Amino acid sequence: MSHPSSGPATVDAAGIVAASDPHVVVEMLARLQPLERADKFRKLPARFAFLVFRQLEATHQQELLEQLDAEQVRRLVEEIDPDDRARLLLEVSEPAAERLLAGLSAQERELTEQLLAHPQESAGRIMSPEYLTLQRAMTVDEALMHVRTFGREAETIDVLPVTDDDSRYAGIVALSDLVLAAPQERIEQLMNVDIRPVRADEDQESVARWIQSADLLAAPVVDDEGRLVGLVTVDDAMDVLDVEEWEDLSRTGAAEPLRRPYFSASIMRLARSRVLWLLMLAIAATLTVNVLNAFEQTLETIVALSLFIPLLIGVGGNAGAQSATTIVRAMAVDDVRFSDVTRVVSRETRVGLLLGSIVAVLGLLPVWWFVGRELAIVVCLTLVAICTLASLVGSFMPLLARRIGVDPAVVSAPFVTTIVDATGLLVYFLIAHAVMGI
Amino acid sequence: MSHPSSGPATVDAAGIVAASDPHVVVEMLARLQPLERADKFRKLPARFAFLVFRQLEATHQQELLEQLDAEQVRRLVEEIDPDDRARLLLEVSEPAAERLLAGLSAQERELTEQLLAHPQESAGRIMSPEYLTLQRAMTVDEALMHVRTFGREAETIDVLPVTDDDSRYAGIVALSDLVLAAPQERIEQLMNVDIRPVRADEDQESVARWIQSADLLAAPVVDDEGRLVGLVTVDDAMDVLDVEEWEDLSRTGAAEPLRRPYFSASIMRLARSRVLWLLMLAIAATLTVNVLNAFEQTLETIVALSLFIPLLIGVGGNAGAQSATTIVRAMAVDDVRFSDVTRVVSRETRVGLLLGSIVAVLGLLPVWWFVGRELAIVVCLTLVAICTLASLVGSFMPLLARRIGVDPAVVSAPFVTTIVDATGLLVYFLIAHAVMGI
Repeated sequence: MSHPSSGPATVDAAGIVAASDPHVVVEMLARLQPLERADKFRKLPARFAFLVFRQLEATHQQELLEQLDAEQVRRLVEEIDPDDRARLLLEVSEPAAERLLAGLSAQERELTEQLLAHPQESAGRIMSPEYLTLQRAMTVDEALMHVRTFGREAETIDVLPVTDDDSRYAGIVALSDLVLAAPQERIEQLMNVDIRPVRADEDQESVARWIQSADLLAAPVVDDEGRLVGLVTVDDAMDVLDVEEWEDLSRTGAAEPLRRPYFSASIMRLARSRVLWLLMLAIAATLTVNVLNAFEQTLETIVALSLFIPLLIGVGGNAGAQSATTIVRAMAVDDVRFSDVTRVVSRETRVGLLLGSIVAVLGLLPVWWFVGRELAIVVCLTLVAICTLASLVGSFMPLLARRIGVDPAVVSAPFVTTIVDATGLLVYFLIAHAVMGI
Repeated sequence: MSHPSSGPATVDAAGIVAASDPHVVVEMLARLQPLERADKFRKLPARFAFLVFRQLEATHQQELLEQLDAEQVRRLVEEIDPDDRARLLLEVSEPAAERLLAGLSAQERELTEQLLAHPQESAGRIMSPEYLTLQRAMTVDEALMHVRTFGREAETIDVLPVTDDDSRYAGIVALSDLVLAAPQERIEQLMNVDIRPVRADEDQESVARWIQSADLLAAPVVDDEGRLVGLVTVDDAMDVLDVEEWEDLSRTGAAEPLRRPYFSASIMRLARSRVLWLLMLAIAATLTVNVLNAFEQTLETIVALSLFIPLLIGVGGNAGAQSATTIVRAMAVDDVRFSDVTRVVSRETRVGLLLGSIVAVLGLLPVWWFVGRELAIVVCLTLVAICTLASLVGSFMPLLARRIGVDPAVVSAPFVTTIVDATGLLVYFLIAHAVMGI
């Protein structure tokens, strides 16, 4: 997938990017090494440099800030929106953050510091404090005049919140509705009062999902007293959802999210994002060694039992991962809550029973032919039991995680698989004991 | 996560929803059974019903269309945007689709049919054909008058594409810029020519990612001759990305995406979305039975070797899943392409070697203490080999999949795990053979 319809970006003889589309330059810069990137970036014309900078990934912005000189930083930074600046400040190193703040006017610095006062991952962190408000009593004509006079200072004017006299949030007017309305209509009549405001300390992801499901261009943010403090715009909501989904996907794949483009992460950094997961799961997997050790005598008597160990725990792990992934997603989009726990676990257990039965019935004859009747019965009964168990564990663990305040994706697929490995082996030997009398 | 700041939705004695926020009603309806949902929906006031309908998930819309009478359907359908209607038409049953089309005016029906002529998952399918164009030669004042006169018929006027005389796309003007501009300025000077148009047959996901990374409210869509045919708006882009990420997550969890809310999917449907994956992976896992069978004699001699089988394939599977997930994501956001294959596989292999070495070094002493020196050396050497191998396979498979036109997420974590299981066992016995001389 390349950038839609854009020609290849080229670097001319002097090393200056010869492309008029900032997005093409961003793509090209993203594929360079950090030093090379800073070098190319310095050669961009000033205004164009800002357009490019704004579209760079946060980690690339950070690297550049660390490598540009004070004057270059100042010129860039004063044009960035306060919410993007707040995000940058948290990600850059101490000296880069100081240079960044030093480049700001007193007013801009205050706006940025206000955003940073909100809790991490809250709506307050990603909202734009530079919005433009309308008053209930204004006419459409007055409102448009107000927009024309002060609109340039706001981050967005696509959506205009309306406040009461005491700056309490009252409703919202889309610029498009304002343009289409009759000149003498009152804002009070025009404004949409169905869009409820979100609180500044609410979770980013839930705000972003709301913007998505209600097709908003921006959601109004209020403080504890209902006073308007900012707007969360749709582009920031998109970025939040992207990051959240990426975190879920990473953890389902047993790794911490990278938070930077693939090639700009070093081998050490890639390993670091994975090593803890791998070790924890390996330690959890020593459970399987203990289970097998407890049944070592059984294994010595019937070595053929060991032939099916990887197959059985593989199927169990997959069934568990299926349930876990489904439930993690259903929770993310708020289809499922902890209060649904009995209903969810009972549904998933029935799904697991059904799946295990299908796999067992289809597998019975081949296994019979391969190792004989008795062992085939043991293997197939285990398949049914292990799939049921895996779906039960796989659906319960993410719900439990959310309940105790852990990201459900953290305990999803890989952890479920490891738990199912150990308990599945236990079930296998117990069934073998019952059927084969060993 | 509940809807931000909204109170609990209540159903009054008459069964009519007593909540003024459509979003709250949508949430409440989503949790009901289909028949109950249709029943409640019929009782909503007409205009409010549309607001609710528009925000319902596509599957719920579909169910409702199948249960409402012709007049109710007609009233709902005429208010839906053509692109949303096209999506609905594809998802509903034959009779519901006919009722839906019957409810449309000739002009609306034609717009919908035009959208359906574009390939699946293309920009043409999700674009809005109801946009408003400006001409290069217009002044800002004329353009605003044009917007006021015709704006109500367009799906969006937040972004206004500009065309040449032969209706070729020339640039784009944001409504906000139009409002802020000097009345006599020409559109030609105001328009942004840096936003390149996308082609109608381009992939939805790449268009959506571009809208996200460039922070656009809408992207212009052109046909093969560069004539403007529509706009892809940011809300549609958000939905596309959400579905795509969900598909990746599902396949990483070895299931087909559900495409409907959790509780509205039956047990049979849940099982159906998983059973094929489970069977395919189980069949692939019979490889492990064959490998173990080939080494049955070795296992009979040293039963202790079997103790570590689940642990080793577990660690290998996790390392493989880590690489696969990282690469699937890096490809989705276009950080990595097939042409990077050598660089990616070599990086991942080094990461795997590093991870395997760390796990092996930390595991050496405990395993030594548990089963003796020789077996400990075998287990730890296998850990190094299996992690390296897993990372290699895990990074190569998704790249290969994309190359041959398969969704990389399909062959990611679960398939990589299964392949690594079998090859890992082989490596285990070969190392045991070399070290222990069996």
